[in-house]
Amino acid sequence: MAEIGIGIIGGGYMGKAHAVAMSAVGAVFNTALRPRLEMVAASSDASAARYAQAFGFARSTGDWKQLVEDPAVEAVVIASPPETHLEITRAAAAAGKPVFCEKPLGASIADAQEMVGVVEAAGLVNMIGFNYIRTPAARFARQLIADGVIGDLTWFRGEHTEDFYADPQEPATWRAHGAANGCMGDLAPHMINAALALIGPIGSVMAEIETVHESRGGVAVTNDDQGQIMCRFANGVMGHMFFSRTATGRKMGYLYEVTGTKGAIRFNQEDQNSIWLYKAEGPEAERGFRQILTGPAHPDYEPFCLGPGHGTGYQDQIIIEARDFLAAIEAGKSLWPSFRDGLDVSQVVEAARRSSAERIWTQVETRQRQGSTRS
Amino acid sequence: MAEIGIGIIGGGYMGKAHAVAMSAVGAVFNTALRPRLEMVAASSDASAARYAQAFGFARSTGDWKQLVEDPAVEAVVIASPPETHLEITRAAAAAGKPVFCEKPLGASIADAQEMVGVVEAAGLVNMIGFNYIRTPAARFARQLIADGVIGDLTWFRGEHTEDFYADPQEPATWRAHGAANGCMGDLAPHMINAALALIGPIGSVMAEIETVHESRGGVAVTNDDQGQIMCRFANGVMGHMFFSRTATGRKMGYLYEVTGTKGAIRFNQEDQNSIWLYKAEGPEAERGFRQILTGPAHPDYEPFCLGPGHGTGYQDQIIIEARDFLAAIEAGKSLWPSFRDGLDVSQVVEAARRSSAERIWTQVETRQRQGSTRS
Amino acid sequence: MAEIGIGIIGGGYMGKAHAVAMSAVGAVFNTALRPRLEMVAASSDASAARYAQAFGFARSTGDWKQLVEDPAVEAVVIASPPETHLEITRAAAAAGKPVFCEKPLGASIADAQEMVGVVEAAGLVNMIGFNYIRTPAARFARQLIADGVIGDLTWFRGEHTEDFYADPQEPATWRAHGAANGCMGDLAPHMINAALALIGPIGSVMAEIETVHESRGGVAVTNDDQGQIMCRFANGVMGHMFFSRTATGRKMGYLYEVTGTKGAIRFNQEDQNSIWLYKAEGPEAERGFRQILTGPAHPDYEPFCLGPGHGTGYQDQIIIEARDFLAAIEAGKSLWPSFRDGLDVSQVVEAARRSSAERIWTQVETRQRQGSTRS
Amino acid sequence: MAEIGIGIIGGGYMGKAHAVAMSAVGAVFNTALRPRLEMVAASSDASAARYAQAFGFARSTGDWKQLVEDPAVEAVVIASPPETHLEITRAAAAAGKPVFCEKPLGASIADAQEMVGVVEAAGLVNMIGFNYIRTPAARFARQLIADGVIGDLTWFRGEHTEDFYADPQEPATWRAHGAANGCMGDLAPHMINAALALIGPIGSVMAEIETVHESRGGVAVTNDDQGQIMCRFANGVMGHMFFSRTATGRKMGYLYEVTGTKGAIRFNQEDQNSIWLYKAEGPEAERGFRQILTGPAHPDYEPFCLGPGHGTGYQDQIIIEARDFLAAIEAGKSLWPSFRDGLDVSQVVEAARRSSAERIWTQVETRQRQGSTRS
Repeated sequence: MAEIGIGIIGGGYMGKAHAVAMSAVGAVFNTALRPRLEMVAASSDASAARYAQAFGFARSTGDWKQLVEDPAVEAVVIASPPETHLEITRAAAAAGKPVFCEKPLGASIADAQEMVGVVEAAGLVNMIGFNYIRTPAARFARQLIADGVIGDLTWFRGEHTEDFYADPQEPATWRAHGAANGCMGDLAPHMINAALALIGPIGSVMAEIETVHESRGGVAVTNDDQGQIMCRFANGVMGHMFFSRTATGRKMGYLYEVTGTKGAIRFNQEDQNSIWLYKAEGPEAERGFRQILTGPAHPDYEPFCLGPGHGTGYQDQIIIEARDFLAAIEAGKSLWPSFRDGLDVSQVVEAARRSSAERIWTQVETRQRQGSTRS
Repeated sequence: MAEIGIGIIGGGYMGKAHAVAMSAVGAVFNTALRPRLEMVAASSDASAARYAQAFGFARSTGDWKQLVEDPAVEAVVIASPPETHLEITRAAAAAGKPVFCEKPLGASIADAQEMVGVVEAAGLVNMIGFNYIRTPAARFARQLIADGVIGDLTWFRGEHTEDFYADPQEPATWRAHGAANGCMGDLAPHMINAALALIGPIGSVMAEIETVHESRGGVAVTNDDQGQIMCRFANGVMGHMFFSRTATGRKMGYLYEVTGTKGAIRFNQEDQNSIWLYKAEGPEAERGFRQILTGPAHPDYEPFCLGPGHGTGYQDQIIIEARDFLAAIEAGKSLWPSFRDGLDVSQVVEAARRSSAERIWTQVETRQRQGSTRS
Repeated sequence: MAEIGIGIIGGGYMGKAHAVAMSAVGAVFNTALRPRLEMVAASSDASAARYAQAFGFARSTGDWKQLVEDPAVEAVVIASPPETHLEITRAAAAAGKPVFCEKPLGASIADAQEMVGVVEAAGLVNMIGFNYIRTPAARFARQLIADGVIGDLTWFRGEHTEDFYADPQEPATWRAHGAANGCMGDLAPHMINAALALIGPIGSVMAEIETVHESRGGVAVTNDDQGQIMCRFANGVMGHMFFSRTATGRKMGYLYEVTGTKGAIRFNQEDQNSIWLYKAEGPEAERGFRQILTGPAHPDYEPFCLGPGHGTGYQDQIIIEARDFLAAIEAGKSLWPSFRDGLDVSQVVEAARRSSAERIWTQVETRQRQGSTRS
Repeated sequence: MAEIGIGIIGGGYMGKAHAVAMSAVGAVFNTALRPRLEMVAASSDASAARYAQAFGFARSTGDWKQLVEDPAVEAVVIASPPETHLEITRAAAAAGKPVFCEKPLGASIADAQEMVGVVEAAGLVNMIGFNYIRTPAARFARQLIADGVIGDLTWFRGEHTEDFYADPQEPATWRAHGAANGCMGDLAPHMINAALALIGPIGSVMAEIETVHESRGGVAVTNDDQGQIMCRFANGVMGHMFFSRTATGRKMGYLYEVTGTKGAIRFNQEDQNSIWLYKAEGPEAERGFRQILTGPAHPDYEPFCLGPGHGTGYQDQIIIEARDFLAAIEAGKSLWPSFRDGLDVSQVVEAARRSSAERIWTQVETRQRQGSTRS
């Protein structure tokens, strides 16, 4: 059991989540590598010091470069705004340190592509943070599909919908500007990643993206509020996805339905401990969607609780990510989802943007690659 | 209280439903006109006689022309296959008799257009049978939207999904052939009609339609299994619809979600006595979708039962249709939805077919008309 | 196909329901006997005339005795207040006419006992109106249990809860007085009947009954608002029932859960077209309660609709009752549930009242009889 | 920010849960005291060493007395079998160390009483582990009730049902013996504690407790499988509770319904991130139970996640317990629920056992005390 010094860049929403996860992951999963909260970086020395105190880091810095270069920091978690991802990745590569990056991969498709190039050229262990796909329910869904339990796939529908920007009176904060902060940059990647993981590579898309509230408090909104994609997967399956930050009433509407010739699966992250399965077998009179509560019989559940139906939560998803990141570091080999998997997602977003602008069906680039490291 | 002689053409699924509805509607709604089951027509004298005996008609015939021309038949219900709709309508017009026609309006867009022309030229009271929009829940949803309870609309999603053809081993019956019998002809009209009623006219569509199981028992399937439509309503709202007869696990997946700036509505016909409403008001901690059980406080419920939550069913929708058809006859004026409303639906289906074939966004014709008789 | 003249006493809630049912049942079930709405009786000539006009009866009377004695009335439906049930039954017996009586059987246990004696002495076809047990879901639940699908029974929980009297500001109408109008007289019989039908005779009860709002508008309430029963069925199963008319938020909370060694069943009348089944079989990871939508595969559904998940409603339950009453008349033999079955229910209510008053476990009388005509 | 050395006795189900919680609680809640995993005790040196390695304790011991007496252990968590609780408590008192004890408080009511005496005499900070009442939803439910949102309470129904012993083929392990390991000892305390927290002290109970499967694999089962309690709270509210370990299909059926004159609350731990609220206000047509997803607007949620509907899980409940235990230590004053609160629960269990044996309504002792430290 060896310790590993962790440096986290960013102490907000995701920075804290990763700090908690790194504190708990060893006890939960009995990991070979045990994280030590070595340093946290933030936009100022003072805020970094506050984060260090709150989360239990040994040290802090207002300059992320110091964190990356610090010899006691042996792995870097990027939880800072998208526009910083590329430069931090370059520095991590220069320092030869494993890197975990929150989604979206970069602030732009060009950034994302370069980030993949950088980590692959440097042979760096790398991972991207799509946490919702980490639940026991999600892994079980993937397993059911892979095992053919629902037969040949015929339809996929996914959503990532929230309502934090549904009220037109909400002001134009940083959320209102920058492609990476819009709905397609911020929410869509999660569900696109789920689609790739559940169904496989996407061949082409037909999208429509729009800004529902074009002005907030007199300030023009310069990114998108919602978008939809009709898609055709490489395996021929037809699908649809919808993303929105103005979906009044939806709090964590990360949901999908997968239909096959022998059954179907439904999932909604708002009840992340249930997965609904229909099997077209047995007497017609006894057929119906069953609500399966996750439990020790499902992947990655038992380390959190021995009792079925007792439930895992948001924070546990991040702990599972931490487990995989540590395992990848120990093995010296990236695990799914890597930066390249994140780029696959970005390529779909990019194709959707082009499709919406040109109003035509659009091929997704590099689709041969999509999902290639699916576990 | 005057009697009216009813003639029903067709004694199958919908023919029986209308016969039961005509038997019950007077007692339920205390209608001014009281139906008398005068005659039923079927494909043979023998089957028609069986239907007459079973459903309680006074007389029967194997020739629908006799029914239309019979002086004791004062109103005609068309519940025969789509390819017969036009000719029967012509005969009813010639006889000057009110006509109720099951959806889809005709076997083709041309038939549908001609049917509208015929009834309008003849000044005939006419109605088309979109029954699912008749539930107390559906009428309440329309009222909530019209009253602005959920604010300005921002998104619509609808589905009509069933699984009667999900099993690839199901044989190629009449269902496998003829545009009117495919998913876009048979299921899509219901949900498109709901979209027009709830949101308003559709301006343009981008569709993809496909045959999932191209061969059944060695026989080529010549119509479609599922289809999806991205649409833009005339009022600017973005929407999506999905239709499928191969949606494993779905039995009556006629469902929709309407999102507005102040709230949202969800409905699923599989639980037709509930409507889910979210209102973005009151303390954040107390907000959530509420499950409203239909009751006497909702439109058209009380005549069926004085107790809330006691529930109406499929047959009751047909009784409500019968009430409106009788009221239209009495008033001498068509009520929503008329043949022209049915044509509006057919125009959307037609535009979707063209869009799917040409793979481009396609304008819906005559959209000025859509929904114009919305009640 | 022979006609039968129906006389209905009472034109309110249940009187109308039976009038509609008698109008529709022939067409729905192709019954051998076809009802003719011959006469309706109400508390005055005028109100009876109004009911006759509204519901389509040929004649009306302000004196129910005339109705019972009228030669064209061949079967009597009692939908008048409980205190009239006994006397009407006596008159029907004197006239030798089949009788259908709404629950509760009589205004008191003594009345109920005498009613059974009267109809049995007269050899009259008789039936009591427990409509909620008539749904396709309820009959399917009984079948699952009888077939051993959920194994040996270990637990039963039932509720009949509504909220029409939850608001303390509701005035003291007829509902506030008379044992038969209280919660134990009005609501409890439905669920007790379900318990007997699903599980079998009840041996003993331990009950607590109370008046939640003892005064309404300054008037003392003289009957009960809610009650609970712990019970032991004759077959050894432990159970519990709760009844309330002050259950804020419950509209039609007629719900039950039956647990067995191999599975479990859940049902809630507020979604009467679903039944939830859990089977302790197959991989642990795939187990869960499944929501089965009623359809043609379930008892008595297909006559109402050929499509699964399309749903039956409250009125359809009354139509199913009418079907059985007509069949009993034709066969000359009472079908479940007869007056005696209604008395079994009354005996449980009576035992519960005694138990609550004396605060001790109390044997149910004549339990040998309970459920003996279970179909 | 001061460190505190934690010693945990027991490394199984709950021992691990507390180890993880103590690892994470500082980062989650920014606690003043920061736990250091100092020592774990188990039944042997070897197993304790394995736990220490897995969970990250500095040291381990096969003798819990060493742990209690170790100077670096500053607080003791008891997660060992119930029969050890009393002796460990005595030792902790002798050493003057704060103690957290898993439920049930002791192996018997006598043990529980003595444990309270010991900690109170020693002035020890003490806490008992009722974790399910710690969810954001549970605290919100208590707040809604306290704030009068649902008016005057009229009914309470609670369940704690699981199915781990539903299969009669399950062998007679330790679970089959010992009152503390039976359903009333193991499951009932959680829901009784919830009842006391939500409604208040219980005055009297009428219970029935039984062993469903009296023999397992030829071995007699000597404790109970399920039990039910009718109860009367001190404030006059009527209630019912059911507990079972043979409730086929239930995985974490810790659920309750609280009815009041102005509203009602429903909760089911199987979906711990939802709470259902009905308010009898606004238009009748818009009333219904609303599903509120927990979020930052609810107690104790935000430290786990900034996004509503993202969900907390089982492990997070234990982290919240740890937060309160640390706060109590820092303040030098026990917080709810203390050992005395645990004794209140045990008194209800004891009264239920007597009631079931004697088949009479039974007073709960010391009810004046119940819930007195309710937060």
